[in-house]
Amino acid sequence: MSVADLVTAAADGSPRAVARLISLVEDAAPELRSVMAALAPLSGRARIVGLTGSPGVGKSTTTAALVGAFRTRGLRVGVLAVDPSSPFSGGALLGDRVRMQDHALDPGVFIRSMASRGHLGGLSWATPQALRVLDAAGCEVVLVETVGVGQAEVEVASLADSTVVLLAPGMGDAIQAAKAGILEVADVFVVNKADRDGADNTVRDLRNMISQGDGPHGGWRPPIVKTVAARGEGIDDLVERLDEHWAWLASTGELARRRTARAAAEIEAIALTALRERLGDLHQGTALDTLAASVVAGETDPYAAADALVAGVTRI
Amino acid sequence: MSVADLVTAAADGSPRAVARLISLVEDAAPELRSVMAALAPLSGRARIVGLTGSPGVGKSTTTAALVGAFRTRGLRVGVLAVDPSSPFSGGALLGDRVRMQDHALDPGVFIRSMASRGHLGGLSWATPQALRVLDAAGCEVVLVETVGVGQAEVEVASLADSTVVLLAPGMGDAIQAAKAGILEVADVFVVNKADRDGADNTVRDLRNMISQGDGPHGGWRPPIVKTVAARGEGIDDLVERLDEHWAWLASTGELARRRTARAAAEIEAIALTALRERLGDLHQGTALDTLAASVVAGETDPYAAADALVAGVTRI
Repeated sequence: MSVADLVTAAADGSPRAVARLISLVEDAAPELRSVMAALAPLSGRARIVGLTGSPGVGKSTTTAALVGAFRTRGLRVGVLAVDPSSPFSGGALLGDRVRMQDHALDPGVFIRSMASRGHLGGLSWATPQALRVLDAAGCEVVLVETVGVGQAEVEVASLADSTVVLLAPGMGDAIQAAKAGILEVADVFVVNKADRDGADNTVRDLRNMISQGDGPHGGWRPPIVKTVAARGEGIDDLVERLDEHWAWLASTGELARRRTARAAAEIEAIALTALRERLGDLHQGTALDTLAASVVAGETDPYAAADALVAGVTRI
Repeated sequence: MSVADLVTAAADGSPRAVARLISLVEDAAPELRSVMAALAPLSGRARIVGLTGSPGVGKSTTTAALVGAFRTRGLRVGVLAVDPSSPFSGGALLGDRVRMQDHALDPGVFIRSMASRGHLGGLSWATPQALRVLDAAGCEVVLVETVGVGQAEVEVASLADSTVVLLAPGMGDAIQAAKAGILEVADVFVVNKADRDGADNTVRDLRNMISQGDGPHGGWRPPIVKTVAARGEGIDDLVERLDEHWAWLASTGELARRRTARAAAEIEAIALTALRERLGDLHQGTALDTLAASVVAGETDPYAAADALVAGVTRI
């Protein structure tokens, strides 16, 4: 099936076409560029919600509950679970995750897990591309779930329109969150497992930290939602807060600002990679070796040699 | 004084001209490029010896003793002390270091300390440039002393023709050295403070590790020299081993190979920095913002936008 046919099938809701496109994107297949070009006119419609937090706070359960809530509204939902610690990628449908089983056979839900190929344990570079596939496939909401391992928490915020940071009572998470810069990226806080001892303490700690920070939220003060996701408690409240944030994003122009900044970062990263590869090509093409020999011989200096190398890059 | 006059004065042995040139290089002054161009024909003659090791092993004392030994032969000697932990840079002449005082007034010795501006605590990017200044000033030997803080140990090896790794008894250094990949970079090992308990154990541990490794030394097996640098003991032996390594470098073609690889890495780093700056210029020039807005609008995809950005870079 051609790329154009695949994209048409995906836009018509074919789970198989969606899976195939994400695989092409993940594998950085030769078709990657034509896939991205074909997706471009279809993208930008999905509302992207990131969920992050330490292992054990209940991210998958909360994600599954959110899928249910958005499905009740009749929205098509995509789920991208990025696991930086997993060596597995690609086909896994997460059907084995207890709560996600409810949705595994629902044709209005696309679920995909990705391993991280990212730098330093962060998100995979293919994550934004996979988001575009789900977006083009007509998902009105895409939930990106990522284990909060250091950098990934901050990175998920750079991908999402709204970022949900999950905590659980008694895990010292509030303090950790403050340390890790999570306060700056959270649009909504969830204290999950709120039926446990210490939930109110966690909420109070968070509230104190929020009131102290000013943060780059441009007037948005992140609300704190108590949930017991395993029993569906508080999920409606969470959806309501997310709706408020979405409305705020749209009314303030913050949505366009965030998405433009995100696209700029993505373009810049791709451009730098391309330039680096061109330098590498020149290296293999002996241009660099020749220049290095000239520097060693005292015939030129490293700056002039670098100029020549850059000129070589620009001539390719 | 013009750059050309400064370089002429430095080549004639003016300590003031040498100091001024290193400052220009360190400060990345606008004259940097013309300085580097003027130095090029004068460089490549100095023999560069790196010394590294943990704090407290006696690097400065050993360096000072080596300066004395090379001065006895009538050689002009440069010393570059790179301290990644120091916020100070520039003028400090290290005259306050006890052993170095002997040489502070010797017109045949240039001593300079540099703080690190390097990435992640490594060597300053200006270090290779400063080496070129000392080289052009007629130093026949340049000793580069760097505190062994992680990456710096490996980096000094990439700058030097011969790398000396210092250890002291009872510091667990041999094991640390093995962990840090020091075995791969050491051309000569020094067990300093060899009059202390445990020196023979350290030598034995090292010998075992050397015999197990094969290393990328192309036939050179790093010797182990016992010294008590504070009393000058073992320094003649160390100089002899360094002479043997120097002869080996020259006879095997390894010297040219190392220097060419070093120049290539330097050129590539400068070229990448230049390309990155050009991308930054485009960013400020709104080209990137415009492209990002097109991606958000679905008019183009990030790869095509990156192509446009790279094309923009190459047109500058």
